[in-house]
Amino acid sequence: MSDTIYFDNAATTFPKPEEVYVFMDKFYRECGVNLGRGQHNLAAKASALVSETRRLLLDLFHCSNKKVIFTHTATEAMNIILQGLTLTDGCNIYLSPFEHNAVTRIVAHLQDIHKLNVITLAVNKEKLSFDLERIRYQFSEKKPALVVLSHASNVCGVVAPIHELCAMSKPYGAINVIDMCQTAGLVDTDVSSDNIDFAIFAGHKTLYGPLGVAGFVCSGRLKPLPLLFGGTGADSANQSLPETVPERYEVASPNIHAISGLFAALQWIKATGIEQIYEKEKYNHFKLIDVLSCFDNIKIFTPNDISSGIGVVSCVFNGYSSDSIGKILSEHHIAVRTGLHCAPYCHKFLGTYPAGTVRFSVSYFNTDADFTVLHRVLDYIVENS
Amino acid sequence: MSDTIYFDNAATTFPKPEEVYVFMDKFYRECGVNLGRGQHNLAAKASALVSETRRLLLDLFHCSNKKVIFTHTATEAMNIILQGLTLTDGCNIYLSPFEHNAVTRIVAHLQDIHKLNVITLAVNKEKLSFDLERIRYQFSEKKPALVVLSHASNVCGVVAPIHELCAMSKPYGAINVIDMCQTAGLVDTDVSSDNIDFAIFAGHKTLYGPLGVAGFVCSGRLKPLPLLFGGTGADSANQSLPETVPERYEVASPNIHAISGLFAALQWIKATGIEQIYEKEKYNHFKLIDVLSCFDNIKIFTPNDISSGIGVVSCVFNGYSSDSIGKILSEHHIAVRTGLHCAPYCHKFLGTYPAGTVRFSVSYFNTDADFTVLHRVLDYIVENS
Repeated sequence: MSDTIYFDNAATTFPKPEEVYVFMDKFYRECGVNLGRGQHNLAAKASALVSETRRLLLDLFHCSNKKVIFTHTATEAMNIILQGLTLTDGCNIYLSPFEHNAVTRIVAHLQDIHKLNVITLAVNKEKLSFDLERIRYQFSEKKPALVVLSHASNVCGVVAPIHELCAMSKPYGAINVIDMCQTAGLVDTDVSSDNIDFAIFAGHKTLYGPLGVAGFVCSGRLKPLPLLFGGTGADSANQSLPETVPERYEVASPNIHAISGLFAALQWIKATGIEQIYEKEKYNHFKLIDVLSCFDNIKIFTPNDISSGIGVVSCVFNGYSSDSIGKILSEHHIAVRTGLHCAPYCHKFLGTYPAGTVRFSVSYFNTDADFTVLHRVLDYIVENS
Repeated sequence: MSDTIYFDNAATTFPKPEEVYVFMDKFYRECGVNLGRGQHNLAAKASALVSETRRLLLDLFHCSNKKVIFTHTATEAMNIILQGLTLTDGCNIYLSPFEHNAVTRIVAHLQDIHKLNVITLAVNKEKLSFDLERIRYQFSEKKPALVVLSHASNVCGVVAPIHELCAMSKPYGAINVIDMCQTAGLVDTDVSSDNIDFAIFAGHKTLYGPLGVAGFVCSGRLKPLPLLFGGTGADSANQSLPETVPERYEVASPNIHAISGLFAALQWIKATGIEQIYEKEKYNHFKLIDVLSCFDNIKIFTPNDISSGIGVVSCVFNGYSSDSIGKILSEHHIAVRTGLHCAPYCHKFLGTYPAGTVRFSVSYFNTDADFTVLHRVLDYIVENS
């Protein structure tokens, strides 16, 4: 393992549970074949694993009424959904102020095609909390056609009240898209409601799986037009993609290697307990805040009510650029992420644009020793400034 | 390892070189982070590996004048290229008769948008060889705007004379797209010529890498419009994708896990020698033909000049459906792929549509014992029919 103290878990969780490394290697050695495109025993075994992984995801999200579509990245999932929806000129699209370029760059592209009104959901800047009353007013003034919402911000960890928001927008006929990249497997969330049209997950973040598998959960009734065309291993004679979900969106060879890792990760989450994972992450989150709060020259961006956030915390160090802090921390083998975190609008909202912040993000696997070292290194930085 | 005798290498090569499994597991355990989006040591190490993998690919394809764009699947690469080109109504698109749904379904989608003339390149049905004289005439009659060509067929292994064809189409201003999924790393191929605009590879097939990494090689001068929008880890404030290549097409977290496996595979190819790999595969290909040729009731689809094909061979068993043969072989632990192989037009061309064929495809790792067992099982099938 690495001797790096890793606070870059919002980019990708590291390390993974030992079970994930072991199972992934074993499965790929024993059964690293292409599924669903043949009838041999290995292909059938691989297909069974994929089905079981879908089932574990539906269990985790409490939505046996829905379907899982696998993609290779959450960005691909967001593109499939947003580019595939039928939007009309003049419609209102609501985004949170925290959205990632994986949302805003797609919306910018859609604005090149349609006349869209892009509106920012009201969030209290002091408390970093969603202002439901103001949002209720926003919706009544300008009816939402589409709401795209990070369940938790990848910059400052603010958790959005997705159920309340989706319940407020749905009566207007809005399509609600929730980006759960920073919460799936961490914040126990029921997405069975019809108010949530699409919920996106990334295997390699809070799900503790590997890179290469992501996807979304949906009812299968609202079907975006396909974005990627290709072989689906079934109905091959048809030059249109199948109408059935998930087949309609799962073109090309599925990444059985990554899916096997996600399978092991989901089993680990189940065995460990999502509440226990959340409690451990919260413990590490609070430890992080405790350390950072010791320094007067560090400004912390986290919700006023810390427990309404997850362990992703942005900071500005007075008198230092974020990049220089990142560099010094790296020299002390502490990994963080500095800059804009692919979310320039979030930094504009926080007032940290264009310099960005130093982002610390914890996982289940950070230890007390990690925070002791962090404290010591921050002491050193302050003393030598 | 599995006790299956694996003749489904055209779907994905299996097993991989031991070095690939070992390196991938080790690298992901030690450095399974997100690259290019931060400054910490692990991120820098991961970035260096990605750069080195690009360099090894350019070496393999003899094209230091070009650039490598990573995607997650070859299908994604084909979609980025074909959907991103600016096509005009009435233009002529030439496809080989062997194209996969990863080409033909995209073209069918493009035909919903533009009036395109889709023309099949002339191939001699008896010899299974491209008819260059007739194609020269085709081009002169209907000027090619776009040529999309599998370097080798995934159904019957026919290798296309890509250099001659691209040289013939280029004077008309055609854009030439070569699908090297079945040849990259197997057939030593120089794609440095300006006649070849895009050459697509799949990491998990003849390159002996894992699933989850593919891509294309291009000059970077002709830039398809982007298909997928999202974070690129750089120039984050800009809501348009960067103009630079590869950044323009590489959105979302790169799959460092899969890329590390491809890196190890490319090193294995270099150490083993691509000529040696080709010779071994050809040896196995000829062994396969020898076994299949022993049976009068097996019709083999392979080029007349066997050495102008690769080890992907389709068969029809008189008196049996392809699926039933696949099932019997599977019961004897022999993995093949039956049906249409996501290439219905190829089967229409071969006269094997809609029933399809039994496809046997070999790799470097098949052994003489595999063919002995295959021979015995085929004997058993014939005796018991």
